[in-house]
Amino acid sequence: MRVDFHTHIIPEQMPDFAKKFGGGRWPTMEKTCSCGANIMVEGKVFREVTDQVWSPEKRIQDMDAEGVDIQVLSPIPVTFSYWADAEAAEEMSKIQNDFIADTVKQYPDRFIGLGTVPLQDVEASIREMDRCIHELGLKGIEIGTNINGENLDAPAFTAFFEAAEKWGVPLFIHPWETLGKERMPRHNFMYTVGMPSETALAAASLINGGVMEKFPDLKVCFAHGGGSFPYILPRLDQGWKVWPHLRKTTKPPSYYAKNFYFDSLNYDPLNLKFLVDRFGYEKVVMGSDYPFLLREIPPGKVVDDTLELTEEQRQAILGGNALAFLNIEIKEEVNR
Amino acid sequence: MRVDFHTHIIPEQMPDFAKKFGGGRWPTMEKTCSCGANIMVEGKVFREVTDQVWSPEKRIQDMDAEGVDIQVLSPIPVTFSYWADAEAAEEMSKIQNDFIADTVKQYPDRFIGLGTVPLQDVEASIREMDRCIHELGLKGIEIGTNINGENLDAPAFTAFFEAAEKWGVPLFIHPWETLGKERMPRHNFMYTVGMPSETALAAASLINGGVMEKFPDLKVCFAHGGGSFPYILPRLDQGWKVWPHLRKTTKPPSYYAKNFYFDSLNYDPLNLKFLVDRFGYEKVVMGSDYPFLLREIPPGKVVDDTLELTEEQRQAILGGNALAFLNIEIKEEVNR
Repeated sequence: MRVDFHTHIIPEQMPDFAKKFGGGRWPTMEKTCSCGANIMVEGKVFREVTDQVWSPEKRIQDMDAEGVDIQVLSPIPVTFSYWADAEAAEEMSKIQNDFIADTVKQYPDRFIGLGTVPLQDVEASIREMDRCIHELGLKGIEIGTNINGENLDAPAFTAFFEAAEKWGVPLFIHPWETLGKERMPRHNFMYTVGMPSETALAAASLINGGVMEKFPDLKVCFAHGGGSFPYILPRLDQGWKVWPHLRKTTKPPSYYAKNFYFDSLNYDPLNLKFLVDRFGYEKVVMGSDYPFLLREIPPGKVVDDTLELTEEQRQAILGGNALAFLNIEIKEEVNR
Repeated sequence: MRVDFHTHIIPEQMPDFAKKFGGGRWPTMEKTCSCGANIMVEGKVFREVTDQVWSPEKRIQDMDAEGVDIQVLSPIPVTFSYWADAEAAEEMSKIQNDFIADTVKQYPDRFIGLGTVPLQDVEASIREMDRCIHELGLKGIEIGTNINGENLDAPAFTAFFEAAEKWGVPLFIHPWETLGKERMPRHNFMYTVGMPSETALAAASLINGGVMEKFPDLKVCFAHGGGSFPYILPRLDQGWKVWPHLRKTTKPPSYYAKNFYFDSLNYDPLNLKFLVDRFGYEKVVMGSDYPFLLREIPPGKVVDDTLELTEEQRQAILGGNALAFLNIEIKEEVNR
């Protein structure tokens, strides 16, 4: 069974929140043809997309063509809306979450859903996480790597992680509003250098700030193979070792990193082998970033191409690990 | 022979440039005891150091104790002074370069020197590079990863790289003024997350901006194992592939990356093995960051600990590669 853990979805139509809430960086959908649209933000094209991004039927066609049994659906980070008034952001979250839950209900054998929550208001984010998991049947929550520039170890977010651990809610951490953007005016480096760096900062923050020590049962998975985190981890250990006065954890960063999960989207067998060697194959879940440009085609290609994996490891990475991470019992009958 | 490619040095006394040039972020040395000092910047302690950072005799003691035959001496990035008036920065560069050249002359069998140049004025930087290499006998130039926030592919720096290639001057690229510092208020993350990200941005800039294509014989080595660059390279390739309209090179980034060198300072055999597998053992030079806190003790520990290396590969990384990178004929007699 092939489960694509990292795919994004957004409704075909979005209400005009800028009009409703008096301006702001709200995304809207502007159709360009019957099977394409621009995601617009503040009157500018944020991203060109095709109907793959909203149509479950189109997605299932692609899944069948590319050998994917199940897609895990996540919101697009541009809908996180952490910058907005919390009430408006909660409404935006609900639109995404309801749409994802509806899509899953339409095709329950093909889709699993993750939700989004308005983390600028931690109480509201816990309320919406509760609704996502306990009412809508979503299986986890996707969150950004930072909330308006605050890293994830800021005390404001502790209650959210506490609730996620208590309810056993898996978190998918996705880069957005990447650090150092002003230093990346060329080459789309915010995607290729910024995002991996941003993801590393988020992972390091959860560790060095003590969140992972405080909530040892928290389930966390990072997008894009963890960005650059897996490779810079020994330097974080060295920092912990030589700056004892800065330590907020009893053990070095690599100890807590063993609890992390990572998607497989690092494009290269040498990278994937490194990831598996560092954290164990049980901690890697296949993810493709469907349907965006940087996606892997077909999903799981790098897993297939990593010849050093045993067949058991390969199968786990391609499907079983994602289901285990999401607390889903595998219905073996599907394959029988 | 063990050559430590990555070590830093600064004179015991520094003139008061702030007084001379009317303020600015000039470093000075404030003695704290007979064998220690604070590097001061704008009245604040920038870094506590010991006499290891200025005394060649103290360094040689450590080298003998830790099995290092030769140290390659580089300026401390805080002396780059790219932010300053070019004339003042050139004077600061000369102080560092003269001191390093003098130290090498005192102990020519134990030290090799790299210089610094005032890159905010490319003409002045070429003039000082000329002096370093052709008068002072220094073997390469250390430069920062950015010049006042400008990445290394900015057209202003083309003439510098052209001259470095023409004269065969090896460049050691060291992170400083790291991107996203404002996002790293805790845990000294500017050193452990910021520096690797900054180094990746510099390496990617030299490639994607076309500098490496334009100057194929340019010799470039990156500090700290290349930061996160080696691990994010496949994502840079993917960007090149999916954004043809942004391409400034005829081949994907990994093609040009094969020309890069990296020091071995990534603290972990799995990392070092990855670096060697990706770029070849000939491209890795042992470096420890002596005498600073994040340094590796003893220098080359990670090379020694990487069991998969053959003895020939290990010896090359520990010494031969650095000499080859620096265009130095190995005097075999030293060992005979």
